[in-house]
Amino acid sequence: MENDKGSPEAPIRSPGSDQIVGFDDGVMKQSGSSFQMMVPNGNDVGSPIDIPSHQTTQSVSISIPQSPLDAKRVFFKDKDSPARNLNFGCEIDETGPEKTPDRLTTPVKNPRMDAMKDNRYNSFKTWSGQLERQLSVLRGKSLPRNDPEINPPQNIQGESLSADRYFDALQGPELETLRPSEEIMLPEDKKWPFLLRYPISSFGICLGVSSQAILWKSASTAWTHFIHISLRVNYILWCISILLFVVVASTYLLKVIFYFEAVRREYYHPIRVNFFFAPWIALLFLAIGIPQDLHAHLPHWLWYVLMTPILCLELKIYGQWMSGGQRRLSKVANPSNHLAVVGNFVGALLGASMGLKEGPIFFFAVGLAHYTVLFVTLYQRLPTNETLPKELHPVFFLFVAAPSVASMAWAKINGSFDYGSRLAYFIALFLYFSLVVRVNFFRGFKFSLAWWAYTFPMTGAAIATIRYSIEVPNIVTKGLSLTLAIAATVTVTGLLITTIVHAFVLRDLFPNDIGIAISGQKPKAQRKWYRRNTCGSAKDIEHQVNSGEKVVQVPVISSGLGVAVRVV
Amino acid sequence: MENDKGSPEAPIRSPGSDQIVGFDDGVMKQSGSSFQMMVPNGNDVGSPIDIPSHQTTQSVSISIPQSPLDAKRVFFKDKDSPARNLNFGCEIDETGPEKTPDRLTTPVKNPRMDAMKDNRYNSFKTWSGQLERQLSVLRGKSLPRNDPEINPPQNIQGESLSADRYFDALQGPELETLRPSEEIMLPEDKKWPFLLRYPISSFGICLGVSSQAILWKSASTAWTHFIHISLRVNYILWCISILLFVVVASTYLLKVIFYFEAVRREYYHPIRVNFFFAPWIALLFLAIGIPQDLHAHLPHWLWYVLMTPILCLELKIYGQWMSGGQRRLSKVANPSNHLAVVGNFVGALLGASMGLKEGPIFFFAVGLAHYTVLFVTLYQRLPTNETLPKELHPVFFLFVAAPSVASMAWAKINGSFDYGSRLAYFIALFLYFSLVVRVNFFRGFKFSLAWWAYTFPMTGAAIATIRYSIEVPNIVTKGLSLTLAIAATVTVTGLLITTIVHAFVLRDLFPNDIGIAISGQKPKAQRKWYRRNTCGSAKDIEHQVNSGEKVVQVPVISSGLGVAVRVV
Amino acid sequence: MENDKGSPEAPIRSPGSDQIVGFDDGVMKQSGSSFQMMVPNGNDVGSPIDIPSHQTTQSVSISIPQSPLDAKRVFFKDKDSPARNLNFGCEIDETGPEKTPDRLTTPVKNPRMDAMKDNRYNSFKTWSGQLERQLSVLRGKSLPRNDPEINPPQNIQGESLSADRYFDALQGPELETLRPSEEIMLPEDKKWPFLLRYPISSFGICLGVSSQAILWKSASTAWTHFIHISLRVNYILWCISILLFVVVASTYLLKVIFYFEAVRREYYHPIRVNFFFAPWIALLFLAIGIPQDLHAHLPHWLWYVLMTPILCLELKIYGQWMSGGQRRLSKVANPSNHLAVVGNFVGALLGASMGLKEGPIFFFAVGLAHYTVLFVTLYQRLPTNETLPKELHPVFFLFVAAPSVASMAWAKINGSFDYGSRLAYFIALFLYFSLVVRVNFFRGFKFSLAWWAYTFPMTGAAIATIRYSIEVPNIVTKGLSLTLAIAATVTVTGLLITTIVHAFVLRDLFPNDIGIAISGQKPKAQRKWYRRNTCGSAKDIEHQVNSGEKVVQVPVISSGLGVAVRVV
Repeated sequence: MENDKGSPEAPIRSPGSDQIVGFDDGVMKQSGSSFQMMVPNGNDVGSPIDIPSHQTTQSVSISIPQSPLDAKRVFFKDKDSPARNLNFGCEIDETGPEKTPDRLTTPVKNPRMDAMKDNRYNSFKTWSGQLERQLSVLRGKSLPRNDPEINPPQNIQGESLSADRYFDALQGPELETLRPSEEIMLPEDKKWPFLLRYPISSFGICLGVSSQAILWKSASTAWTHFIHISLRVNYILWCISILLFVVVASTYLLKVIFYFEAVRREYYHPIRVNFFFAPWIALLFLAIGIPQDLHAHLPHWLWYVLMTPILCLELKIYGQWMSGGQRRLSKVANPSNHLAVVGNFVGALLGASMGLKEGPIFFFAVGLAHYTVLFVTLYQRLPTNETLPKELHPVFFLFVAAPSVASMAWAKINGSFDYGSRLAYFIALFLYFSLVVRVNFFRGFKFSLAWWAYTFPMTGAAIATIRYSIEVPNIVTKGLSLTLAIAATVTVTGLLITTIVHAFVLRDLFPNDIGIAISGQKPKAQRKWYRRNTCGSAKDIEHQVNSGEKVVQVPVISSGLGVAVRVV
Repeated sequence: MENDKGSPEAPIRSPGSDQIVGFDDGVMKQSGSSFQMMVPNGNDVGSPIDIPSHQTTQSVSISIPQSPLDAKRVFFKDKDSPARNLNFGCEIDETGPEKTPDRLTTPVKNPRMDAMKDNRYNSFKTWSGQLERQLSVLRGKSLPRNDPEINPPQNIQGESLSADRYFDALQGPELETLRPSEEIMLPEDKKWPFLLRYPISSFGICLGVSSQAILWKSASTAWTHFIHISLRVNYILWCISILLFVVVASTYLLKVIFYFEAVRREYYHPIRVNFFFAPWIALLFLAIGIPQDLHAHLPHWLWYVLMTPILCLELKIYGQWMSGGQRRLSKVANPSNHLAVVGNFVGALLGASMGLKEGPIFFFAVGLAHYTVLFVTLYQRLPTNETLPKELHPVFFLFVAAPSVASMAWAKINGSFDYGSRLAYFIALFLYFSLVVRVNFFRGFKFSLAWWAYTFPMTGAAIATIRYSIEVPNIVTKGLSLTLAIAATVTVTGLLITTIVHAFVLRDLFPNDIGIAISGQKPKAQRKWYRRNTCGSAKDIEHQVNSGEKVVQVPVISSGLGVAVRVV
Repeated sequence: MENDKGSPEAPIRSPGSDQIVGFDDGVMKQSGSSFQMMVPNGNDVGSPIDIPSHQTTQSVSISIPQSPLDAKRVFFKDKDSPARNLNFGCEIDETGPEKTPDRLTTPVKNPRMDAMKDNRYNSFKTWSGQLERQLSVLRGKSLPRNDPEINPPQNIQGESLSADRYFDALQGPELETLRPSEEIMLPEDKKWPFLLRYPISSFGICLGVSSQAILWKSASTAWTHFIHISLRVNYILWCISILLFVVVASTYLLKVIFYFEAVRREYYHPIRVNFFFAPWIALLFLAIGIPQDLHAHLPHWLWYVLMTPILCLELKIYGQWMSGGQRRLSKVANPSNHLAVVGNFVGALLGASMGLKEGPIFFFAVGLAHYTVLFVTLYQRLPTNETLPKELHPVFFLFVAAPSVASMAWAKINGSFDYGSRLAYFIALFLYFSLVVRVNFFRGFKFSLAWWAYTFPMTGAAIATIRYSIEVPNIVTKGLSLTLAIAATVTVTGLLITTIVHAFVLRDLFPNDIGIAISGQKPKAQRKWYRRNTCGSAKDIEHQVNSGEKVVQVPVISSGLGVAVRVV
């Protein structure tokens, strides 16, 4: 694989890389590698046909060093990321040019290719874009031939990324940012098709707005002798919520139809999966917030219809927590998991409001058990919970959601705002306080659509406070309910403005959704070290081991003996 | 033991072994070691009397290399596993024959020795078999002289294996399989005496059958207007249960009498210890399932008698969880711990049925506190919980047991199936669903007696559902109760058939109980690395560290000096 | 600082130190270091004025080796502990004199300097002692000039030690003992000023005594028909408690005034911070235990005044647990955290006794949520909980405190000792039993003032049992309440005697408070290894790695080259 041109002085390890001294035998085992010869001067002698094609086959370039002295620095780097479109690999002598020239890694831009035809996105399309092509045929358009170049070999269908891959490749509290060492499967330098950039977290907007509709519905009935809030506010907000939901949902439906593989990758994303609860919770919110003059009684079947997908998702997600593969709770615990729990309480609240009895208690019980597990786990902050943000973040407001809604749900189930409801409400209130006093939680965080989901708990707390102020009517509770209601509305309004600015002014509301485009495999050098690693702190050690390692190159004068020892 | 064929090319380190090149000073410090000289040609000059005797004394063979050059590569390997029957040690150059010849490690079979006289089992016998010998004397048999060969020096009495030893040496969800690198103290190639193979988990059968008696007792009273179930079913099942319990218990009692050391090792087994709750829970089941026409009122003292051992065991086991030596919960957490908790609820149920008040609440409280701890811990799946099976396994059904029984117990205590009972019941129901939808949980698992203990939760859930269907009588609840009852009965029947097949056809119902026969110490090379290790992930690192280690053999040209450095 | 006596045999690595051979580049980057040249003959050319002064500037001595051959073995040792009073650093050849002569490291004793003037303590004083100097001026005393030597540059103000520092530098269940490798900032060989040695845990005495006042108040009202206990006992104990609190609190107030930096360091101490709840809990105890003839009704504002600091502390401490920096719960979990939770229940009990409703439920809810988290976490004994004592320790009695008080608080809130109260009470009782049966928990532990805080739970359990025996009056409960009351009183009496002996006979009640005097940075060699480490087990590995390391000194014959490689 590599020609050591007989240089006897070749050092056995190059500084700065992680691989162990010696020929990485992994390289030799790679079947189907296309070897591409390069002279150090950079003349790419690879076949030009490679450029537009998508190769999963690994290509390893071997540079023939010009002088025997250079040979000392030859080492192998095996990059088996299938996402790269070109021949790459084996950069020889990285001490030379710092980076492989981009013309080698980025495809030659074909001006005729527009984004929809750019077959780099094909792997994320439903049936690799065949559906789209059929639709094109129906519209009478001519179809490019289904040649190998267009149907990329590295079809990701059927391949489900492991949770570890997401944790390894991404960072940030929402696992949305690529780690420096990673590569993505889609072009980084241009905007992807809209649907590919449209995340499931968009349903957060529906959560935020429809919970406001509930808030002002509650306020208008509760504060009759205090402040007069017209029922019209609820009506308008509810109509906006309905409209918003239709728009958001139908757009996402298009994504499901055209980019099913991207949806599947969102579903496997350890954080993003929790947002799959958002559409159903938003529907529950719409049902709870329905204006009084619109409904006499919501039909019972509606509740069952809405709760079925939530139950199915829960059986899936909670089962993953417990049954313990890679998605076990000690690994994926993140405040966004609250989204997976709060649906139980919202459902219980709606069901109890409708007059159901056993169903709401069922979901309340399931929610209680799993909220306890989640609450303890998140409070502990296990060392394995890598994704938990170091500092406070709007996501922490999700802590407030479940107990707020639980207190109202229990009050509905039980018929009165009793001790159980109060316990839940006061826990929510304390957590709210606990977050509010940490004033620096908005600092240094990039706005993202997911924030919408993080604000509905504020509204939930405000609604619960209104409910509590009905039970304990005095100046403090009324003042508190007013304050929280205003805070929630101001936050939602602020977020709305931010969203509009991002959508129409900065035009970056939907940036490239890096989280779904990570490559299936890690760059080789790191995989060697991190492969079976689960414990966060353990990773820290390794990090130290790596960073602390030193190549002690002992200068040998008399005997010609070179001992290269990696001291850890 | 192994022949260094004088080959000068013998590498100084054999692949796959972990020890450091050089003289392991631990070897020299071993007091009482008998050094046995070997010439490299492999003539074992050890005394032939060694062969049948059991030596705990460590024997280290030193090979005298043939050339002074070889001397540099001599290294020691200290295997202090007391189970080996022969002199061994110091394998030089393991790259020779792949495996140590069996004739050296297995004793020469003495056809006169039968299993009961085979003094290799003596160390597991009560007082090292002295009780048995005394009984033999009573029966007038001649007794072999109590010479050193028969009374093995490596008496394991008083030696309590650490929990770490069990985790290190065993694997599998029930810690019943030996890891490849480990050795056991008893002969692997033949069947041990029956009592040694008879595990405490046999009481699981009693749990399974006696819970069926309760199920059909409940069904016969609940379904009077639905399906007529004769009380005779309960009666028959209860009688079978009693009979079964007597058989199982008296057999185990024999084990306690004759193989107390084996019982003690079961008690120290981190998973098996939970099964020590099984006899008492089975007795509680028998008391609950007693046919109506047999008892007017069970006497109160019976409850106190039954709960005393449970309380004592709990004080011991829960104390171990909390007080944090090696058996701390983050280490030993396993679904089988539910057995240690469910007794509280079963006891509370029986006590409340008897009309007691404070005692049942006491056990209910204790159970609730520890169930919460256990539920959260198991749901989190801490990285330290090594023994938790990766995939689903019947053991997970134990999750369902505690909340099922708790709901009934609370209903009895409280006098009505109120919200508390429903919360517990619905949690059980959800967990049941959650397990049922994962259909692949029976795949690839070897049947074991412990499965019986894993099925009584199904029966418990069925009974709780019957209780619930009395409270909420409609077609859904009645159908559900019928379904669950049938599922439980079918499962128990299936297990019964499997057990009978294993017992009488395959004759492997009681395989050698590897779990109790592990040696007290790890093979030396590994112990050095794993000794104080508790964190599973940390172990992973070490594993990588180990596997990543390489012997850098520096080619020395001028000085003729070979420096072998283990670089980690 | 130390003389290399020119011995050519100096090994390149001193035993017991961890640093890697070679030039530690960290040394050279230290800005502000004063380089002090030494000739190998040991003439210290450092200015004598250095000796009494406190220098934060790091001084690195470089020895000029006598022969070029020696140059290979020169290495640096960077000791950046700011506590040392003298120039030091770069000890070359530590195999010379075993210990650096004391005359160099300890200041020349100035008999005129008394402890209050000893400016080594200045850094712990409020505004570095400026307050004190101002007070001196007010008293008309002459003031030493504020020259650099007196105002030490290593002012620790504003520097908040990380939690990791405390864990790294200290050991023991209360993190009060210095690890062998660490250094402290204050002189170890003499007694510090009293206020510096006076810890916040002194409030534990108030907890112990004032809870006794409550106990005998309860007993005198409960046991009227059983044993007659005069109300005078309560009266006397309460007065003692008040007096004690005034003394303890005013003394600590002096510490706050004069040694605010020491208080701040106690506040950052991961274990000690929990004792900051003690003063307020003691005040609550005083309010609860107030003799009946003294108060008609305590005013409501008193409750709000007392609960405000508790709420503020909780917002801070619980927020640290959750928001996850270094003080996250999985890291700092320790039974002493119960002190941070029990205040909620004590406050709820007092508030409910006063007739308040919502406030007590609020604190009860907050306490319940966080007690659940804490209970589960402590029971699990995560591998990251380094500070949890391996064996049982009086601190474990804090487990009993929260459920005991919670049961009484709930009974007050609810108006009756119902199921909720009983569940809490029985949990407390079981935990109490569980601790009592482990009889060896007093063995091998050094008495400390903190023990007082560990005994009030016994009193709490006794009071709860008295409350329970009112509810369920029979011989068992009355006997139990009497037994527990006696046990608590005997323990408190015994502790009182021990304390008096330590205070007046042994005169070591307040030893030097090592915990607050740790240096801000680890000795360099270790910091490299432990820096970002959080997982306890990971630390274990490192420990092994460290202890397993060997210096392989390759004897080089032909070339005369000594290669020292630290093989890990």
